[in-house]
Amino acid sequence: MAATPLKTIENTGDLASIMTDIGRRARSAARVLALASTAQKNAALAAMARAIRGYTGAIIASNAEDLADARASSANGAFLDRLSLDEQRIEAMAAGLETVAALADPVGVVTESWTRPNGMTIERVRVPLGVIGIIYESRPNVTADAGALCLKAGNAAILRGGSDSHRTSRAIHAALAQGLREAGLPEDAIQFVPTRDRAAVGHMLAGLDGTIDVIVPRGGKGLVGRVQAEARVPVFAHLEGVCHVFVDKAASLDMAKTIVLNAKMRRTGVCGAAETLLVDRAAAPAELKPLIAMLLDAGCEVRGDQAVQAADPRVKPATEEDWSTEYLDAVIAAKVVDNLDAAIAHIERYGSHHTDAIVTDDPKAAEKFLREVDSAIVLHNASTQFADGGEFGFGAEIGIATGRMHARGPVGVEQLTSFKYRIRGTGQIRP
Amino acid sequence: MAATPLKTIENTGDLASIMTDIGRRARSAARVLALASTAQKNAALAAMARAIRGYTGAIIASNAEDLADARASSANGAFLDRLSLDEQRIEAMAAGLETVAALADPVGVVTESWTRPNGMTIERVRVPLGVIGIIYESRPNVTADAGALCLKAGNAAILRGGSDSHRTSRAIHAALAQGLREAGLPEDAIQFVPTRDRAAVGHMLAGLDGTIDVIVPRGGKGLVGRVQAEARVPVFAHLEGVCHVFVDKAASLDMAKTIVLNAKMRRTGVCGAAETLLVDRAAAPAELKPLIAMLLDAGCEVRGDQAVQAADPRVKPATEEDWSTEYLDAVIAAKVVDNLDAAIAHIERYGSHHTDAIVTDDPKAAEKFLREVDSAIVLHNASTQFADGGEFGFGAEIGIATGRMHARGPVGVEQLTSFKYRIRGTGQIRP
Repeated sequence: MAATPLKTIENTGDLASIMTDIGRRARSAARVLALASTAQKNAALAAMARAIRGYTGAIIASNAEDLADARASSANGAFLDRLSLDEQRIEAMAAGLETVAALADPVGVVTESWTRPNGMTIERVRVPLGVIGIIYESRPNVTADAGALCLKAGNAAILRGGSDSHRTSRAIHAALAQGLREAGLPEDAIQFVPTRDRAAVGHMLAGLDGTIDVIVPRGGKGLVGRVQAEARVPVFAHLEGVCHVFVDKAASLDMAKTIVLNAKMRRTGVCGAAETLLVDRAAAPAELKPLIAMLLDAGCEVRGDQAVQAADPRVKPATEEDWSTEYLDAVIAAKVVDNLDAAIAHIERYGSHHTDAIVTDDPKAAEKFLREVDSAIVLHNASTQFADGGEFGFGAEIGIATGRMHARGPVGVEQLTSFKYRIRGTGQIRP
Repeated sequence: MAATPLKTIENTGDLASIMTDIGRRARSAARVLALASTAQKNAALAAMARAIRGYTGAIIASNAEDLADARASSANGAFLDRLSLDEQRIEAMAAGLETVAALADPVGVVTESWTRPNGMTIERVRVPLGVIGIIYESRPNVTADAGALCLKAGNAAILRGGSDSHRTSRAIHAALAQGLREAGLPEDAIQFVPTRDRAAVGHMLAGLDGTIDVIVPRGGKGLVGRVQAEARVPVFAHLEGVCHVFVDKAASLDMAKTIVLNAKMRRTGVCGAAETLLVDRAAAPAELKPLIAMLLDAGCEVRGDQAVQAADPRVKPATEEDWSTEYLDAVIAAKVVDNLDAAIAHIERYGSHHTDAIVTDDPKAAEKFLREVDSAIVLHNASTQFADGGEFGFGAEIGIATGRMHARGPVGVEQLTSFKYRIRGTGQIRP
């Protein structure tokens, strides 16, 4: 089946003014959303879920057109899988909207309050961030997931989906728009950039005349790297997750094996997957050989330093580049380090400040690692694969951030808010 | 007395590499500072205070040279006052360092903790932000104030003082460096950019190869505007404070008079000074005339709309520009608005999201104002001049931010931190 021509605005020749208008409308919708009640936002999310279910046929039809184009351009299997939607995935998207509806509303929550000696009370209260730009690639479900999280936190969203999933994302967006309408919220609260023109991304990265408060890229390293390099507004993202597991000299072999196997092999393509194994030199005689054999037996390629190579003939030599490589595959770099300090120094030098774990039965070593490793998430005796908003109990996340400003680690609804101070007095003036 | 020639690096021709080196050294010092104990940081602050007092003579001598240059270039009185230090001001600077030492250390504070169903505990703990760039103008005391606050929160600071106060700031910086040495902390923890070359500012705004995490400008609108427009890294700042006082129909005249007079006239040059008075049309018959007369009698120029002009012959007509002007002087714009909604709409349109107050005896009107006005600080029945970290109980502030990312309102030590997640398990893996 030939794909039907896609209506776009590519040829209007006025992308800049269209993007500026999108920003202006988002800002205006953000003002309404910031004051919307929890009930109204939840009603919109529930209506969106119903509309997604009701539009299943139309979404699958749009998806078939996108898939036909992708196959025609010889996209690979992993790409087609990310792009592809079926009834089950669409139901999961609708259920995801209901999960977000069930989350506590962060807006209006007083996080601190105190009374001054002059009797004034000061409250710090959560308010929405404003307008969030989401730039994503082939996964069309981001349309619903990201739109819903922004809405829950009272923010307007500008969604710029990948050109390969443009039709599918647009069909999903139509369902979100219907949900907003049904709940009496402005449709501009979640806008979908109606063009495949890549120049639209550049406009968003420039901030659309100050209307975008933060950009969240969702996709591969190429996208995230471009966004981090070019954005003139703050970005919540991680470029990569070179995550480490350090097996301390006081680690039990059983726990080390359990955690290393899970951290590396449970899913190799997630950002919290371990990419480097560090083994304390004092633990190596007893633990190195069984750990490496276990990984190799599980089908994991191991690239090691000389000590690791000596532990098993199947180990390949590691190059300097391996220590900073995020494989996202069944490959691990492995190294014997002199001690805990050397492990921390290695992680600081080669890591990406994402997620790192220590396995040890020594509480002092654990506390030192948790304190000194400067990563968004540090773990003691637990798998790095817990680096996930759902596993933190956040209900949903828009991504994981390795920056230090505002958001860090899994970014859930709370981190999509800002705050203000409310002061209540009885006529106080400043002397 | 002719000023002695100032040694600078202007003529080395290699500013870029000098600035890059400063950034690299700051990043390295930040790593040490992040792990420094509270006692060690406080010891440094105490030693700095002693050194400032001990260097009083040298600081005053350097200041005399800066002042001589400034007088020779016909600087005005306000400028000379900002630049000028005497024994009393130097003592205040030293005491300020001791105040910062007495503040609670924000680093290491657990702000949230919870246990997951699988038994893992998750803690959110404060960590330093990293490297903070401070760009300031003629006030040399910023050298000590800002350096101390950054240090307390475990951050390295790169200070770029105004060229007019370069010698004075450098003399103060020498005292800070001595304090760091005495406490065994790296001198690079607080670096002073050793050049008057304005191009150094451009390098800092570009982030010094990713080594600067946030920039804080301290100075006039020209500086703040340039920093906000050009910085490629986050900025904590406010460009201006067009602060409003709204006198609601349910305001008591006495309280309205007290608050309006204090908000406008206590100090006219601070960012929390009121610049616009809005009076509810329903309150105008009883309150407008006495409020306006009070301001005029206190020596404040009033620029009003027609209703305000009709209240007193001394009122000058306001132009459209007046509604968005920060006078920082004994001038106020005044307008009669139809009701609370019109007041909020006016503030959203013309304000700067800094600090705004309502005077009313009606709790519902107050709550609506506090909820709907989107400013960093909103007050009910209290003066806008409370917009100050000291008045909030923060002990000290590095400035006031009107942005929505990370920091907002008075920026104290807590807002100079980031956070990370510490997870403690007993062998948990992800299913």
